[in-house]
Amino acid sequence: MVVRYEARDRIARITLDRPERGNAITAEMIGELAACVERADLDPEVHVLLLAGSGPGFCGGYDLVESAEGMGRAAEQAGDGGQGSVAPPAGSPIDPAVIAANHDPGRAWDPMVDYAMMGRNVRGFMSLFHCGKPVVCRVHGFCVAGGTDMALCSDLLVIASDAKIGYPPARVWGSPTTALWALRVGDQRAKRLLFTGDSLSGAEAAEWGLAIEAPEPEQLVERTEVLLERIARVPVNQLMMMKLLVNQSVYAQGLHAAGARHRLRRHHPPHARGIRLPAAGGRSGLPRGGARARRALRRSRPLELQGLSSAPGGGVQGSPRCCVGG
Amino acid sequence: MVVRYEARDRIARITLDRPERGNAITAEMIGELAACVERADLDPEVHVLLLAGSGPGFCGGYDLVESAEGMGRAAEQAGDGGQGSVAPPAGSPIDPAVIAANHDPGRAWDPMVDYAMMGRNVRGFMSLFHCGKPVVCRVHGFCVAGGTDMALCSDLLVIASDAKIGYPPARVWGSPTTALWALRVGDQRAKRLLFTGDSLSGAEAAEWGLAIEAPEPEQLVERTEVLLERIARVPVNQLMMMKLLVNQSVYAQGLHAAGARHRLRRHHPPHARGIRLPAAGGRSGLPRGGARARRALRRSRPLELQGLSSAPGGGVQGSPRCCVGG
Repeated sequence: MVVRYEARDRIARITLDRPERGNAITAEMIGELAACVERADLDPEVHVLLLAGSGPGFCGGYDLVESAEGMGRAAEQAGDGGQGSVAPPAGSPIDPAVIAANHDPGRAWDPMVDYAMMGRNVRGFMSLFHCGKPVVCRVHGFCVAGGTDMALCSDLLVIASDAKIGYPPARVWGSPTTALWALRVGDQRAKRLLFTGDSLSGAEAAEWGLAIEAPEPEQLVERTEVLLERIARVPVNQLMMMKLLVNQSVYAQGLHAAGARHRLRRHHPPHARGIRLPAAGGRSGLPRGGARARRALRRSRPLELQGLSSAPGGGVQGSPRCCVGG
Repeated sequence: MVVRYEARDRIARITLDRPERGNAITAEMIGELAACVERADLDPEVHVLLLAGSGPGFCGGYDLVESAEGMGRAAEQAGDGGQGSVAPPAGSPIDPAVIAANHDPGRAWDPMVDYAMMGRNVRGFMSLFHCGKPVVCRVHGFCVAGGTDMALCSDLLVIASDAKIGYPPARVWGSPTTALWALRVGDQRAKRLLFTGDSLSGAEAAEWGLAIEAPEPEQLVERTEVLLERIARVPVNQLMMMKLLVNQSVYAQGLHAAGARHRLRRHHPPHARGIRLPAAGGRSGLPRGGARARRALRRSRPLELQGLSSAPGGGVQGSPRCCVGG
């Protein structure tokens, strides 16, 4: 279990719980998140959901180390005949060996394999958006890369004034798969962020309307609770109607068309982008295996972590210490 | 198991398998359908899916008898404290007792309870639309009411020339929840069908472009196999791109906005529509319990079955012998 669930007093609390990895996203986490959302949505006592993270920050994005280790294992299994793997289905787009092969710079890139895999992640994140009941996301510390998918799929964002939120992988790695930035901050500001990979502070996020509130860090929990309690007083069917009312204007702006079209090209072929994942058979030139793959991937840590502190006019200082991705 | 699954030679065959009830839809069937679709979608050997039905016809719509019995049981359980029910979650919008109470003409109608329940069914049907790979639907005999949700969420329809397809519940019961008719046949023809509840013959469905082919009944299986084999020869990533390419224009036409807005009002309050479901506590005036509820519901068999034979200019003769609904 990497996502904790608790429901009482009309509020369901869903907590990302991999603090040692900056709550970095894994397939397991996405599955548990979607299951917790559905549980809260079906619970007649629950009026509103809170999504938060344990440890030093909300979420540092996808766990590329775990991906690399998974791919390393898959490569090793492929070497001895591929035995030993049970689920996910062998040869499917969510099979680590398939993902690794598709990221091998020496081989052709199949955008549909990537789309099939990433589309399932998006479905998991979008469970927050499609949940009938309101979801408040509370961000402290950092919310970057894939972490922003969860924050933006939530209905309301309350963020500590000193937290960082942004999509640094915009610089090289790919693009946000839930395609919600333009809808949340408008085209100008979305382009300002996505053409640079710059992040916003919590205070800036509130100024831009991305967040509804940006309290001082020591006030974050209390201010979020005040909001949750205000919402929890409203009858749940009223809340559901209001969420649907507002989301319909988002649908009408073409969310699904934009998202589907976009995810097809969400990142460019790895052999063209200079960042190499360890791949099946070692053809990428990176060493095989878990520990070595991890070291190799740390050396090739994506640029966004270096860049978090370098943005004039919009950036913020500091970076999460975990290895994150798109 | 009410849905059978078989995959070989690049084709996954999904068969609705409640022939004794005209493959009438239950919550169990929808869940199994979605699971089979995902299984085929993830199987790297599968290029194309076939959806078909066993017995005398493809699908007669929702199983109102099973609903009524479920509600009867729920009412009895409510009478002795609601013990004994485990899943679905008690008090949730998919709890039969909640559905029954919401259909009690003596009580207020909560559209959000209905939306939450029906939205989950729609998600199940739409698994056919969202499946990355093509889905061919083969219809014989009849495809009416909720059965059309499955046929229209599929990519290609091959229908026997003498089969009936339509949405008879349009006359009184409610409206099609997947909201695909206008997208499939255009506004004029959709209104012609939905303002009357008239059905089309398979031959008419092909003339109107709703079906891609309408062979004579004895040719139906063979013609469908020819199409499946033609599709199965194409590389699976090509097929996925082509499906996405076409579906994007459907997204762009507002499918999700129309569907979500529509499902909120998908049927009018039961106390205003003259058809009464057996409800918790017997307040509807119908008797309690399974067998009696079934008899009562048969007496109040929805109008669409009578009407299937009455449409001048567009209708067809004959009707399935199962009890169907919206």
